[in-house]
Amino acid sequence: MIRLFTLREYRFFCYTHTRMSSFLPKSIQNLIDEFSRLPGIGPKTAERLAIHLLHSPHSKIVGLGESVLNMKEGVEFCAKCWHLADDSLCHVCRDEARNRGVICVVEHVLDVVAIEKSRAFSGVYHVLHGVLSPMDGIGPEDLKLYELEKRVKEGDVREVVLAVNPSVEGETTALYITKMLRPYEGVRVTRIARGLPVGGELGYADESTISRAIVGRMGVE
Amino acid sequence: MIRLFTLREYRFFCYTHTRMSSFLPKSIQNLIDEFSRLPGIGPKTAERLAIHLLHSPHSKIVGLGESVLNMKEGVEFCAKCWHLADDSLCHVCRDEARNRGVICVVEHVLDVVAIEKSRAFSGVYHVLHGVLSPMDGIGPEDLKLYELEKRVKEGDVREVVLAVNPSVEGETTALYITKMLRPYEGVRVTRIARGLPVGGELGYADESTISRAIVGRMGVE
Repeated sequence: MIRLFTLREYRFFCYTHTRMSSFLPKSIQNLIDEFSRLPGIGPKTAERLAIHLLHSPHSKIVGLGESVLNMKEGVEFCAKCWHLADDSLCHVCRDEARNRGVICVVEHVLDVVAIEKSRAFSGVYHVLHGVLSPMDGIGPEDLKLYELEKRVKEGDVREVVLAVNPSVEGETTALYITKMLRPYEGVRVTRIARGLPVGGELGYADESTISRAIVGRMGVE
Repeated sequence: MIRLFTLREYRFFCYTHTRMSSFLPKSIQNLIDEFSRLPGIGPKTAERLAIHLLHSPHSKIVGLGESVLNMKEGVEFCAKCWHLADDSLCHVCRDEARNRGVICVVEHVLDVVAIEKSRAFSGVYHVLHGVLSPMDGIGPEDLKLYELEKRVKEGDVREVVLAVNPSVEGETTALYITKMLRPYEGVRVTRIARGLPVGGELGYADESTISRAIVGRMGVE
């Protein structure tokens, strides 16, 4: 009797079989395995990266290896805004010129970097380190929400700009913060504008972006 | 007078300006710079990778860092076929079951891995480590061509399978090898088949692939 594999079984067989028997020296296969565990890097890209490094000068290999090992050296979270910092305070919170009356609330560290690169914001930040997501068991106590309320309570904050992403979880988090800050009179809660990106064409934009762009239209000065 | 930037100047300004002032701790910026020097990894991907590692357990960071540093440990080139090896001979040349009468000539190390994964070839390999390219100043003496001729001269080789890529340089290299091996009677030089990939549809294939598929047609058994 001939036993036929299903496509799924066949793929699994190929996968395990290829993994078990390596066709490259062990130290290089180790590196390929480590690279392919990184997000967005598949086995083929990992192979190419490893072979590229193999043909690179020794200094480049040492540079990358030591940067990885030392990456956490001296890195802390800013005691005020929870951004990454070299010291107890991050570069934004240390900067005397920043407007401490305006706090921009973001989900992640890289959102701060993205906004800083735009050079359009002169206030300070607050990094939540996530969004509310009951499905994944992430509640208010898992985020830096209490710390945000404390900052609003203590300092003379005039405005809190919500720059969370427009996902279901982001919207929930925005709503939570709006409610949380309602008792504080004199604190205005705003959201960054959603609309057509600069260079984006109307014909290619999705319905909800166009709808947000129309609702959020501004007077021409 | 208002001085207007050209788009090119503006982009250069943004680029240098963003590079100079880092918005992240130095050790993390170092890692991002190292990652973005790798092929196919842009600044955004490098940022994502670094932040992913930052949130990873310590063991994973050490695993990656040490794999990079130790990647060349014990890695040599096989004395026979110039594939990567743990020892003086690679796993293929060490394998007693392989057919030493058939040599498959490939450009790079990863080509050996790709053919090995297909499990369709039972002979041995010869890695050229490049292709002839007069434009880049790569001549026969820069490749492992002399070593190939030596193997053919010494051993009882019956067939040399050319598996170089169908680029201009690859074709030139194939022609060079064919001429080089002409004096050796009893050695057949072949090329791997070009044609439609398995799963590829005729309507989407380019003209030269279809042309090769028709020229290389085989009798149905």
